[in-house]
Amino acid sequence: MEEVMRASRRSDVDPFIVMDVMEAARRAEAAGRHIIHMEVGQPGTPAPVGAREALAREMATDALGYTVALGVPALRQRIARLYRDWYGLDLNPDRVIVTPGSSGAFLLAFSALFDAGEKVGLGEPGYPSYRQILKALSLEPVGLPTALENRLQPVPEDVPEGLSGLIVASPANPSGTMLSREALAALIARAEEIGAAFVSDEIYHGIQYEGRAISALEISDEVCVINSFSKYFSMTGWRVGWMVVPGSDVRRYERLAQNMFICAPHASQVAALGAMECEAELQANMAVYAENRRLMLEGLPEAGFTRIAPPDGAFYIYADVSEFTSDSLAFSREILDRAGVAVTPGLDFDPRRGHGTLRFSYARATADIAEGLVRLRDFMNVR
Amino acid sequence: MEEVMRASRRSDVDPFIVMDVMEAARRAEAAGRHIIHMEVGQPGTPAPVGAREALAREMATDALGYTVALGVPALRQRIARLYRDWYGLDLNPDRVIVTPGSSGAFLLAFSALFDAGEKVGLGEPGYPSYRQILKALSLEPVGLPTALENRLQPVPEDVPEGLSGLIVASPANPSGTMLSREALAALIARAEEIGAAFVSDEIYHGIQYEGRAISALEISDEVCVINSFSKYFSMTGWRVGWMVVPGSDVRRYERLAQNMFICAPHASQVAALGAMECEAELQANMAVYAENRRLMLEGLPEAGFTRIAPPDGAFYIYADVSEFTSDSLAFSREILDRAGVAVTPGLDFDPRRGHGTLRFSYARATADIAEGLVRLRDFMNVR
Repeated sequence: MEEVMRASRRSDVDPFIVMDVMEAARRAEAAGRHIIHMEVGQPGTPAPVGAREALAREMATDALGYTVALGVPALRQRIARLYRDWYGLDLNPDRVIVTPGSSGAFLLAFSALFDAGEKVGLGEPGYPSYRQILKALSLEPVGLPTALENRLQPVPEDVPEGLSGLIVASPANPSGTMLSREALAALIARAEEIGAAFVSDEIYHGIQYEGRAISALEISDEVCVINSFSKYFSMTGWRVGWMVVPGSDVRRYERLAQNMFICAPHASQVAALGAMECEAELQANMAVYAENRRLMLEGLPEAGFTRIAPPDGAFYIYADVSEFTSDSLAFSREILDRAGVAVTPGLDFDPRRGHGTLRFSYARATADIAEGLVRLRDFMNVR
Repeated sequence: MEEVMRASRRSDVDPFIVMDVMEAARRAEAAGRHIIHMEVGQPGTPAPVGAREALAREMATDALGYTVALGVPALRQRIARLYRDWYGLDLNPDRVIVTPGSSGAFLLAFSALFDAGEKVGLGEPGYPSYRQILKALSLEPVGLPTALENRLQPVPEDVPEGLSGLIVASPANPSGTMLSREALAALIARAEEIGAAFVSDEIYHGIQYEGRAISALEISDEVCVINSFSKYFSMTGWRVGWMVVPGSDVRRYERLAQNMFICAPHASQVAALGAMECEAELQANMAVYAENRRLMLEGLPEAGFTRIAPPDGAFYIYADVSEFTSDSLAFSREILDRAGVAVTPGLDFDPRRGHGTLRFSYARATADIAEGLVRLRDFMNVR
């Protein structure tokens, strides 16, 4: 007799809707079709050569056992130096915690900051896993609908009393919009005012086209900053990221990390340290994104996608397609079937308004982007 | 003015006491002393050659981006085959979930199975992170004191009503004791009787000296089995493990894993697949552990440590030292200072009775074990 295992209520998280699209794309490719991938949120490039070489050297000489929970000291020091180079900040390496990706950093931050039942605010649209990780940790995500005139970012008036935390991302996913120093400072002040912890997701820092992204650390030391080697450093699958926390909180994070993760993957930490010396290669990747973005900003409006958020950074363009559809999932399936372009319906990012939006990623090769834009234009013309 | 960030109650987990010992050992070494490490819970050997070669090949040709959340399909299939080779079981690969170490598997299992406030039972002594991860997830760990006559494993009479889950490990850490098929079946039946999920930590399977370890999957499909490449496959720092769950639960775990981890480290998955073809090298490691164990079982009683649990597996010996001390932490410091041998006080594993116990690890080189035993004997003789 088959018994049914118990299941927690908090594990009843939403599926990723984009997975349906990716599976449909995979099936189309298996059937021999050529698909352009504008749905994927990761670079097509591997880790920089210097990262892979550093790991190959280390594998030959070191057993690569557990590292200390906070991460390899040389990597923590090198990350601290990044804050000098990128933001002109003098950061104590003791405040840097190396994590198993930004995913691990969110698990760590949310359990360190919030107790079961507490409410945490997040802008809509936004990265869907914030909401699901919060739920899995018995926390209550509070979506804050944002306005296009605010660059699809929350403003202080959007942030109600009663929140224990506020998560902000700049550049954001899916919109690519960035917060100005003033806008970011206003949100940090509002969080302080209501006694909410401020979590700044800075995973797309470095991938920026109009000025540079502002770190929350430029405004306050009493914030929790989360970053990763996945995007700018092109190391998604390596699962290595970091956080910067107030100095007085480090021991608490350390004890949690010892138990929850033991450490971030040692091999990935070695590779990440190598990647940080590969500026030329990383800037070459950036030049590709910049050219892709130029093509997208020209080609999407030509195809009819004119209502887009200002894509200051990251490698996404978020488009309001409510003039064409009230069912973005069906629309994305139609685009896949008829144009052979995989795009992401907005529902993953915005449960309320995402039925009228799409996210286009331009993280892949320029030739693919150009071909995808031709297909999108042809599709929209005959539609 | 320095503001203090918020802190959750659930993040107030206990520190690892062994960290004090490790830090003291590090300081002694920095001061020029030669220390024998019997405190460390990991092999001294690197990942097998075949694992590292597989990764070197893959790094040259693949971008190593995200994998699907459940893990690389070839690895899931290969793990399923292990259940045929080790236990004679025919396991559907769809039930295998590749995780970021067994740590990631515990995070996934506990959030999938239990809601905030629920009680989960675990044998004392046991792996300290069970307790701390449960706490970080707002769950209530319930320690079940075990008896030496039960091989320091819980028996059904130890397991009260009211638990939502029961965690069992065989071979266990710190004791190395294994559960017989009958003992394991009785615990699974007891868990079923009280409606508790059964979580079987099988991380030390393969490292066994007297017969073989029994998997909970040999008894029931309605269990959650957790394993890892850290121990038998000698890949601690790579942070890759796996779990086997009932087929009907896979989708729920998949959705959680997509959000909590995205995937286990891709490079580590590639290396793990390589490691599974390195039986000769892994058996050579086992021969070292077996010889170390022989030396320990001879040398520890000679030194006066006669009250030990039957070390059927893993690479630990857990000794009752209550005839010598009622403060195992002070005793371990004394052994470090005077004998130059680092050992682990029992308090991490058993908050109630660990003041009278020590854990000795024999995972390192045989020459170190032999030297450590001489030092321990000399120390105890003059004490």
